[in-house]
Amino acid sequence: MPEMSDLPQTMIAVLQTGDGYSGKSEGPQIDDAAAYLELAEIAVPKPGKGQVTIRLRMSSVNPSDLHFIKGEYGQPRVKGTPAGFEGCGDVVAAGEGAEGLVGQRVAFVVAMGGSGAWAEYALTDAINCVPLRPDLRDEDGAAQIVNPMTAMAMVDIAKQAGESFVVSAASSQLGKLMVSLGRDMGLKPIALVRREEAVTILKEKGAEEVFVTSDPDLSAKFAAASKALKPRVFLDAVSNQLSEQIFVAMPNGARWISYGKLDPELPQLTQMGQLIFMGKRIEGFWLTSWMRATPPQDQMRVIGEVQARFADGRWRTDVSSHLGLRDVVSQLAGALKNTDGKVMISP
Amino acid sequence: MPEMSDLPQTMIAVLQTGDGYSGKSEGPQIDDAAAYLELAEIAVPKPGKGQVTIRLRMSSVNPSDLHFIKGEYGQPRVKGTPAGFEGCGDVVAAGEGAEGLVGQRVAFVVAMGGSGAWAEYALTDAINCVPLRPDLRDEDGAAQIVNPMTAMAMVDIAKQAGESFVVSAASSQLGKLMVSLGRDMGLKPIALVRREEAVTILKEKGAEEVFVTSDPDLSAKFAAASKALKPRVFLDAVSNQLSEQIFVAMPNGARWISYGKLDPELPQLTQMGQLIFMGKRIEGFWLTSWMRATPPQDQMRVIGEVQARFADGRWRTDVSSHLGLRDVVSQLAGALKNTDGKVMISP
Repeated sequence: MPEMSDLPQTMIAVLQTGDGYSGKSEGPQIDDAAAYLELAEIAVPKPGKGQVTIRLRMSSVNPSDLHFIKGEYGQPRVKGTPAGFEGCGDVVAAGEGAEGLVGQRVAFVVAMGGSGAWAEYALTDAINCVPLRPDLRDEDGAAQIVNPMTAMAMVDIAKQAGESFVVSAASSQLGKLMVSLGRDMGLKPIALVRREEAVTILKEKGAEEVFVTSDPDLSAKFAAASKALKPRVFLDAVSNQLSEQIFVAMPNGARWISYGKLDPELPQLTQMGQLIFMGKRIEGFWLTSWMRATPPQDQMRVIGEVQARFADGRWRTDVSSHLGLRDVVSQLAGALKNTDGKVMISP
Repeated sequence: MPEMSDLPQTMIAVLQTGDGYSGKSEGPQIDDAAAYLELAEIAVPKPGKGQVTIRLRMSSVNPSDLHFIKGEYGQPRVKGTPAGFEGCGDVVAAGEGAEGLVGQRVAFVVAMGGSGAWAEYALTDAINCVPLRPDLRDEDGAAQIVNPMTAMAMVDIAKQAGESFVVSAASSQLGKLMVSLGRDMGLKPIALVRREEAVTILKEKGAEEVFVTSDPDLSAKFAAASKALKPRVFLDAVSNQLSEQIFVAMPNGARWISYGKLDPELPQLTQMGQLIFMGKRIEGFWLTSWMRATPPQDQMRVIGEVQARFADGRWRTDVSSHLGLRDVVSQLAGALKNTDGKVMISP
């Protein structure tokens, strides 16, 4: 293991105050981050075999981070450990087998048993690090894995199923990535957005149709689009009753793929007969599962494509605000109210 | 085409009075069959190319028949045509290419464009007929395709997924077939029943565990069984909120396969996170789709196995009552109240 002598003994970090699962299913909205997080000074994490310690440049705030700190995610919270799944920074220490990464700027996600990205230093497995091309901004590096890989993987699923697909919460960062990626792949994305102002943006990104969820004529308009474009896959971040109605209006063989629960409303299944007679099904998508199931070479191909898209400007991470680590607990809830881009955290 | 001269010109039949879909989703309960059916004298159907006319011996009443006459099935009603999907009888006339079946006793299901089984004569495609071994009773022939083939196909799905599976409405004819078939295949069926009296019967049929749905401790008992036996497939005829709770209590990767809607209650999805993080999914099963997707030789193998099971007594169709065609409209609703076996209809 390289010398840790250059590193400080302690660091500032944003810690989770909850433990395990909450047993609730409220969705990612937070009124006050102090209910789940606290600022503290803790020891800088030291890398074990195959691990690296990363000095943070910037970390991003994803909906999955919010699900996680609230205890509503696919893995349990560990009280007293730093929050934050994703970021970018410089590798400053490495355990056995990971020495080659020292000195490199990497995008990373935190591994099970690591230490979160909302801290001056993070700890993760070397295999969860992607070296960054020099032409990429820190902003793009800090949001390069969770959303872009999810977009790539889900649009690939959609492509295998047909020529069109539906995306909810389409004006989210991930939604925009999926719409533009779908267009580039020759597909016809149908975008659902909450705000009328987002329609033009999504059309520019490549949506074949954009519908506003509050439109009283949504049902008829979507039915017509569904009939014409025959979308077979619904990539859904919202998972409420409207999602169910969209699914019901889709053609034979349609798949409702939920990857998020932005609305706490519990959807009712109003037409079980569609599952029985029309071969429809309801399932989920989780990047962690996809990564476990996808061979490394396929993942590397996807990672290369993601970096190329950020480097040549086809993709760009829109940032709504930058927070310092010391301001996260007090300012995160307010910063999240602006949904035009991602909230970024810097040391 | 063989001579039709031996056949009468007209016949007694139980006709559908509704047309198309009802747009409702009430489930198979009927208070009065006269709301959906009427007795009439109509022309005996004549076979076209590849079709046969069958003189009815006996037809069965399946839940799918009730869904269908109510306009809640996967295909639209045609007003004025005989109801009834399944029966057994003697082939008395055949169109081009189907002559070999004339004179044979067959089990049959009605095809699209045919004429229903609740009539003195039915019309179907030759490929929807299964010649019956002489050692089989008419009762078994009249209920040999829909339930037994469904049981075979669904338990096969369960077997591919793991060592245990869950069956709801397990004291139905189909439920009992699936439990006994599962046991014979070396699986551990978990049966859900409504009535305490059914527990012993299901245990005898081969259920590893039997739970009564009204048991206040059902949740804890099922959770313990789920943990111990790890059922991955839920074959569900009920599709209500309890079904959802059972699904939620199943392990990673569980599949809720709905094949019926006995309870009109619409289930809420209370834990979308399970679809996302635990790789669970919700889908349907329809024998018609299975038959379209399954090669004929595989279907023939299944049919042979079904007949062998009825012939050697491993399976037996329990009959709760026999109705004459003339009594169906007035007595069907009452006869269905006895759920100890199937209602059979004879000319």
